[in-house]
Amino acid sequence: MPNPQFEIRPSILVGDTADVYLQRTMSVLRSEKLNPGVVMEFFPRSRGVFCGIKEVATLLAKILPENGREVWALEEGETVDSHEVALRIKAPYGSIGLYETAICGIFSSCTGWATAARECVEAAQGIPVISFGGRHIHPNVAPIRDSAAVVGGYVSCSSVLGARLAGVTAAGTMPHSLILVMGDTVKAVQAFDRHMPQDVPRIALVDTFKDEAEESLNVARALKDRLRGVRLDTPAERGGVTPELVKEVRSRLDLAGLKHVEIFVSGGVTPERIKGFAEAGAPVDAFGVGSYISGASLNDFTADIHEVDGKPVAKRGRIPGVTYNPRLERLL
Amino acid sequence: MPNPQFEIRPSILVGDTADVYLQRTMSVLRSEKLNPGVVMEFFPRSRGVFCGIKEVATLLAKILPENGREVWALEEGETVDSHEVALRIKAPYGSIGLYETAICGIFSSCTGWATAARECVEAAQGIPVISFGGRHIHPNVAPIRDSAAVVGGYVSCSSVLGARLAGVTAAGTMPHSLILVMGDTVKAVQAFDRHMPQDVPRIALVDTFKDEAEESLNVARALKDRLRGVRLDTPAERGGVTPELVKEVRSRLDLAGLKHVEIFVSGGVTPERIKGFAEAGAPVDAFGVGSYISGASLNDFTADIHEVDGKPVAKRGRIPGVTYNPRLERLL
Amino acid sequence: MPNPQFEIRPSILVGDTADVYLQRTMSVLRSEKLNPGVVMEFFPRSRGVFCGIKEVATLLAKILPENGREVWALEEGETVDSHEVALRIKAPYGSIGLYETAICGIFSSCTGWATAARECVEAAQGIPVISFGGRHIHPNVAPIRDSAAVVGGYVSCSSVLGARLAGVTAAGTMPHSLILVMGDTVKAVQAFDRHMPQDVPRIALVDTFKDEAEESLNVARALKDRLRGVRLDTPAERGGVTPELVKEVRSRLDLAGLKHVEIFVSGGVTPERIKGFAEAGAPVDAFGVGSYISGASLNDFTADIHEVDGKPVAKRGRIPGVTYNPRLERLL
Amino acid sequence: MPNPQFEIRPSILVGDTADVYLQRTMSVLRSEKLNPGVVMEFFPRSRGVFCGIKEVATLLAKILPENGREVWALEEGETVDSHEVALRIKAPYGSIGLYETAICGIFSSCTGWATAARECVEAAQGIPVISFGGRHIHPNVAPIRDSAAVVGGYVSCSSVLGARLAGVTAAGTMPHSLILVMGDTVKAVQAFDRHMPQDVPRIALVDTFKDEAEESLNVARALKDRLRGVRLDTPAERGGVTPELVKEVRSRLDLAGLKHVEIFVSGGVTPERIKGFAEAGAPVDAFGVGSYISGASLNDFTADIHEVDGKPVAKRGRIPGVTYNPRLERLL
Amino acid sequence: MPNPQFEIRPSILVGDTADVYLQRTMSVLRSEKLNPGVVMEFFPRSRGVFCGIKEVATLLAKILPENGREVWALEEGETVDSHEVALRIKAPYGSIGLYETAICGIFSSCTGWATAARECVEAAQGIPVISFGGRHIHPNVAPIRDSAAVVGGYVSCSSVLGARLAGVTAAGTMPHSLILVMGDTVKAVQAFDRHMPQDVPRIALVDTFKDEAEESLNVARALKDRLRGVRLDTPAERGGVTPELVKEVRSRLDLAGLKHVEIFVSGGVTPERIKGFAEAGAPVDAFGVGSYISGASLNDFTADIHEVDGKPVAKRGRIPGVTYNPRLERLL
Amino acid sequence: MPNPQFEIRPSILVGDTADVYLQRTMSVLRSEKLNPGVVMEFFPRSRGVFCGIKEVATLLAKILPENGREVWALEEGETVDSHEVALRIKAPYGSIGLYETAICGIFSSCTGWATAARECVEAAQGIPVISFGGRHIHPNVAPIRDSAAVVGGYVSCSSVLGARLAGVTAAGTMPHSLILVMGDTVKAVQAFDRHMPQDVPRIALVDTFKDEAEESLNVARALKDRLRGVRLDTPAERGGVTPELVKEVRSRLDLAGLKHVEIFVSGGVTPERIKGFAEAGAPVDAFGVGSYISGASLNDFTADIHEVDGKPVAKRGRIPGVTYNPRLERLL
Repeated sequence: MPNPQFEIRPSILVGDTADVYLQRTMSVLRSEKLNPGVVMEFFPRSRGVFCGIKEVATLLAKILPENGREVWALEEGETVDSHEVALRIKAPYGSIGLYETAICGIFSSCTGWATAARECVEAAQGIPVISFGGRHIHPNVAPIRDSAAVVGGYVSCSSVLGARLAGVTAAGTMPHSLILVMGDTVKAVQAFDRHMPQDVPRIALVDTFKDEAEESLNVARALKDRLRGVRLDTPAERGGVTPELVKEVRSRLDLAGLKHVEIFVSGGVTPERIKGFAEAGAPVDAFGVGSYISGASLNDFTADIHEVDGKPVAKRGRIPGVTYNPRLERLL
Repeated sequence: MPNPQFEIRPSILVGDTADVYLQRTMSVLRSEKLNPGVVMEFFPRSRGVFCGIKEVATLLAKILPENGREVWALEEGETVDSHEVALRIKAPYGSIGLYETAICGIFSSCTGWATAARECVEAAQGIPVISFGGRHIHPNVAPIRDSAAVVGGYVSCSSVLGARLAGVTAAGTMPHSLILVMGDTVKAVQAFDRHMPQDVPRIALVDTFKDEAEESLNVARALKDRLRGVRLDTPAERGGVTPELVKEVRSRLDLAGLKHVEIFVSGGVTPERIKGFAEAGAPVDAFGVGSYISGASLNDFTADIHEVDGKPVAKRGRIPGVTYNPRLERLL
Repeated sequence: MPNPQFEIRPSILVGDTADVYLQRTMSVLRSEKLNPGVVMEFFPRSRGVFCGIKEVATLLAKILPENGREVWALEEGETVDSHEVALRIKAPYGSIGLYETAICGIFSSCTGWATAARECVEAAQGIPVISFGGRHIHPNVAPIRDSAAVVGGYVSCSSVLGARLAGVTAAGTMPHSLILVMGDTVKAVQAFDRHMPQDVPRIALVDTFKDEAEESLNVARALKDRLRGVRLDTPAERGGVTPELVKEVRSRLDLAGLKHVEIFVSGGVTPERIKGFAEAGAPVDAFGVGSYISGASLNDFTADIHEVDGKPVAKRGRIPGVTYNPRLERLL
Repeated sequence: MPNPQFEIRPSILVGDTADVYLQRTMSVLRSEKLNPGVVMEFFPRSRGVFCGIKEVATLLAKILPENGREVWALEEGETVDSHEVALRIKAPYGSIGLYETAICGIFSSCTGWATAARECVEAAQGIPVISFGGRHIHPNVAPIRDSAAVVGGYVSCSSVLGARLAGVTAAGTMPHSLILVMGDTVKAVQAFDRHMPQDVPRIALVDTFKDEAEESLNVARALKDRLRGVRLDTPAERGGVTPELVKEVRSRLDLAGLKHVEIFVSGGVTPERIKGFAEAGAPVDAFGVGSYISGASLNDFTADIHEVDGKPVAKRGRIPGVTYNPRLERLL
Repeated sequence: MPNPQFEIRPSILVGDTADVYLQRTMSVLRSEKLNPGVVMEFFPRSRGVFCGIKEVATLLAKILPENGREVWALEEGETVDSHEVALRIKAPYGSIGLYETAICGIFSSCTGWATAARECVEAAQGIPVISFGGRHIHPNVAPIRDSAAVVGGYVSCSSVLGARLAGVTAAGTMPHSLILVMGDTVKAVQAFDRHMPQDVPRIALVDTFKDEAEESLNVARALKDRLRGVRLDTPAERGGVTPELVKEVRSRLDLAGLKHVEIFVSGGVTPERIKGFAEAGAPVDAFGVGSYISGASLNDFTADIHEVDGKPVAKRGRIPGVTYNPRLERLL
Repeated sequence: MPNPQFEIRPSILVGDTADVYLQRTMSVLRSEKLNPGVVMEFFPRSRGVFCGIKEVATLLAKILPENGREVWALEEGETVDSHEVALRIKAPYGSIGLYETAICGIFSSCTGWATAARECVEAAQGIPVISFGGRHIHPNVAPIRDSAAVVGGYVSCSSVLGARLAGVTAAGTMPHSLILVMGDTVKAVQAFDRHMPQDVPRIALVDTFKDEAEESLNVARALKDRLRGVRLDTPAERGGVTPELVKEVRSRLDLAGLKHVEIFVSGGVTPERIKGFAEAGAPVDAFGVGSYISGASLNDFTADIHEVDGKPVAKRGRIPGVTYNPRLERLL
């Protein structure tokens, strides 16, 4: 399952992102000439969509010796239960000890993101959801977050690199800045239409200067059949996008004979709000979700040693010996 | 304020971590031969400790033309109010438009982390706090999170790279894995003592195999004056670390004439629990905090264009024109 | 304090709005030839702004014999405490018994309305409040409700008859129907301006067809100095009127040199929301409040006989004899 | 459905109870020589028992021209859904515009009252409920409230005029004042019995001077078979009427061979308390409910223009064009 | 149903524990030469497990004259409903009046205790529960409380006298004081094993000096097959006993081939916590519960006279006459 | 401080009320010939009014050898803090070990009762409170509970034996049974008056058959100056005693010239309700409180050994060595 698209940064490989006490531990054990085989198990604090194993597999393939290693794991995107073992590594401690920090970190972040994405997908009941808004999270991980959202069920994402990792086509409409720079929504949409390749869908952002319903009609009349849809992104200061607004825009478009124009909704969208649209029967064609995933709770992963040199061990509070989990598959 | 320690990855510089609609916008504007000067302002959703500006400054120094640019900002670590403008950039739109995603992302993550760190520091009322547990977050950002924690007031952090970014010495004790591999806490502590340089403090983890109070006395008798302290990290399955446990260990150490041995507390520590220790008068010498910061809410930042070619503009829901904020200082 | 403006309807005077048992009681007592002098006291269930006494005084002046009657009361608009006696009548039972229902009813409704009005006035901290929206309550009492709102501190009201009862000038702007019938906000405002007398202030309703900020500028440019203000009445489906919207409209008007144009806010306004505007520093020039008063809790009044033929009596649960209340003033 | 019993007051017909801006609108449109045909629709804010249409029909019959008018409505007493169109009027704007305030006001009040009445009726599970206590609301509307309660399912009401509007016989027992004036419950009941026509039921109020159970036996022994029932109206200061009290009085009456005497309960009765009596199996023969209905939340109605001169229109936030509702019946 | 084990103290028989007004009442009635036959009924305030009737029967057998008495009651351990008559006594008032206080008192305490015990038993779903901790309640009633717990379903209790009253064998393990006095858990367990008769089960308390899991293995290795079980009683300062701790101790014992060693849990156990153990599937072999029962709410009993000399009577608030309850059985 | 009034029952002295494991411990230690001197400390779980030490002192004087014993304690009635040492015993373990159960039990019950009593006293702000209702608790401890209530600040109690233990005169009025047996309140009060000694205050219970206010006047007119007061004990089925009822009865008594008649309140009285009377200014002359104290939470006491043969020891979770508490006084 390793995926060469994931780049493992040199600082990770040399252990500079690890907790310093692991570097010290490696040094003490080397001095003591100790390098026993261990079984290390990784489990999450709570139930979720397991994610990150492709990136971790890419790392493990680089660091574990080919002989004597044994790696078992759940698959990317499977549901993992609270405290269920999701990855088991059997290897000499010297080859794996330093990477406990990085492996837990990848799982904690990615599983948290994929789980949040799944919640949105389930709330949307078949309406497509797209990962928007790389702006809510550090660019060093924004594309990985986008890719985890696709693992959680999103159909696409907005960052170029995230789409590449996930193997999908990046999706997007147009930003407020284009319209502000050009000074008029219709002009901006017409320029976009003039210069973009045919396969880029024309989706107009319609809340920049005028009422959304009014502007939707304006851009639809300007682009006619070439307009794929409009995006409603009304700011909180104007009440946000509501199910009633979607219904009204739909109704005014239909009344003007513009039934082909789709409606996309973005701006602070959450599973709760998605349910609100669904229950009100608002005709949304796609949701763009950003901050809900970035701000999702991490799902902390913990690593525990359960065997040393073939003998069951565990620290206080854990059960000694290899934990039985028939769902794990051999990975390496 | 740029800090060369922050590495700006090539994928960020070429715009691959950006939302795809920004790449398209750049292309449309180039085709239209439009590149007006703009004023772009960045503000957070809620009050917090402003963080990330050193990394952003490093980015801006690389991308903005030296002539005609003007950058004003709050300083790293200052308190920023809800919706207060924290960064204002004046530049040709063509040089800055593509980086809106990355700049917001850096601020959102770093400010969220620094704010959470500040909460812990305030709860601790003078007791030092250290950033532990890179394992709770993706290694691509774990060191940056550590460095943001120091901006928020932590005295140190556990990752080697994080310490380098923050200009502090990395801190750490010893992991459960060292003790499990060696099979006995006293033996592990003695090995650590044998092989580590003099300037690494000897802090023993005492909850692996035995009762914490009993084990504290064991390691203290073994290392005598060379023992700097013990770390209590009792797992939730054994009740976690409580103020009463700290008091009892202190008392048993004192009764045995081991008053020099300090007590460090870690494991699911939160501001709430830190207050509990303080109110109970538990004699803690330092706290190690991990998942509280990693799991902190992001503090979303938004970018808005307020001037185009010298004229005040704004999208609906915003006030047109440059926003007055006398706290900003010229950065570039 | 009787106010001849209050029309006492014949059905009230003949007792047809009274509970039928009072008519029967009158009949029994006449047959028994009983007509003792009684002291009847009226008190409210809870604290509030006492209102209705002018209308009640108008009624009492019509029904009580001039000799032997004695009426003591609090004044219109005074604060009345929970269970405090607000009206005391000494009269032959035969002249007053039938009107217990009507008197309690007037007080219960009017005191409830005036109390709710006072809450709004206190929340508004000096910004004028106007009673809008006769449409929330039955037209038989809508003007009386408007008049009670003025007793509670409102500066004016929207119904013609209410204003007459309260001795103020009726206030109003323009309804959505005028704009819908004329098909365009600017045209409607211009027609209004052409035909209305000079002393009617020109206040444009700006949320019918377009974004409020855009439309405010349109009407202001059309009427220039003759425009007194704009009214924001954004429906809930569009997020209602928010403090941010008021600030933005103010800012865009100021930027366009239209500082003289005032901003009026209406639509589901409550004391809670008024406080929100105040705390956010939103520059509102007046509030129009409708359904909050109409839907206010009534403040039930109860009548009790405390003396019969000069002897203290009371039903179980009440204290016999005239209740001491030095705040009462002789009315009739 | 017009009901001539409803008196439309002159002040309503001349528009003096209307909002002043409607009078001004009529004047502007006359000056502009505009009088287009419009479709105006009325809908409530929340679900309830539709009430007031008989009174509104009486008004409409007076004001709309016979030619060209078209009125469709739900029937009095039908359930109306939140935001469902309950009345649709097609008429020249000049004939209807002024009455928007009055029509909405009638519906808002009456529907609120009928809905509250229905709640009580449903809680009572077949035990009759009577509208008591005109004293809780202004006498200008008290009879209309009584009549709305009958629309909601009450079997009768206490005001003479309300009973006439609703086409029922007014119901009542005797007030505390009769007993206080006569000085003794038994004497008062005997006087009532002597002088009232045979068809007025003898129902004694038994909480004025003595314990309810004791007094019930006293009056029952005095009137024998002529006593229809007793009314319990214990004040809050004595604990109010409880299910246990009803059971005990029933038991003491039965033990004394007075099984024919019925028990009526009044005093602060609410659906919640009615349910309490039902669940405890307390043998109540009828409830009298007053303040619960008077103090019920109004159910605000709103009027919207959806067509002007045959063309679909609507203000922002509404769907243009006539709203489909097959439940409406042609009224005029 | 009298049980001679229950000792009725002289102070009760002479009436010194009674309310003084009952002594005075007896004196007044004797002076008035009044001693009518009465029916006195006893009922609880709320639903519960009826307990105390054996002790009460022992008292009644001593005080009631054999002729003319009639005693009907529910049986010990039956469920009694809120306000259900649980005991009915027909006797001359002079023979029973003085004992109303004592009888109610016995029922109130015992029924409260038995009801709390039943809650624990139901939560435990078949796992045995033992009454521990006479130390939570006054020794004058501690054994009676233990006996009531057995009525509620406990299998045994810790006090010698309580076990005798309940007809079971007293149960216990060993106290912390034995281990503290001997200075070492293993030594204390070995001494216990040396000196106790064969039929006393060897159950070691394992939380005094060391970690519970570690000490469990120590004592099990010392006593081998003679060890019946270990008792976990971890104090709150160390997190209390948790389901995870039980599972881990079980697992470590099994891994060491000590499957015969049972696990007993005590220390602040409540029904809520018992459910927690059950839901988590923690393999507990028995629970010891102390303070939950001692601190249980009493279930107040009230005595009412319902017949005097064969005539139905009752005070206000009660139904006169003997209350029908077919569940009562003749006792005396 | 021993008080010979407290009878220590033989079953306590022989250890039959103790937990069986203490008997076994004594036997093991005797076999091992171990009888070290120990320091045993007793502390409560929560803050309260310390009570029971007189009874415990009576026990200790019987069981501890005169030589070598040392007993330190807080005084009866002092406030004891949560976890504060309230009793410290230094003695050979063999003389004290068996009584740990009884001593903790006495403190737990008595301190819980005294603490609840203090709450009532503090709420009453100077109005006397009397312990009523031995019927709420087992007669084996009812008098001890009464005596603890006096320690908590009550002025008297209703049980004869409780008054003797506390050194006060027992207080009481008359029970419902006297009135029911005699069939009439006035007759019962007159009989009471005829036969009781002069020093027994005449306090009439006035809620049995009639309304309280009516009956109060009846008995006051019958006994004139000899009536000390009336007791209101209205059952919950009639609304209980309310502040308004007290005020009304006071007012009707005063109006009838019976100002000397006092008003006593009983029936489900709690600190919360006492505060309600105080805040409403209801003129209560004394409160009788029963079930609130009986049903009070126990305040669990725990015994810990802190020294064995002069050496500091403690189980896990406690601090070894004698606990410093300068408030303790030498008792034996």
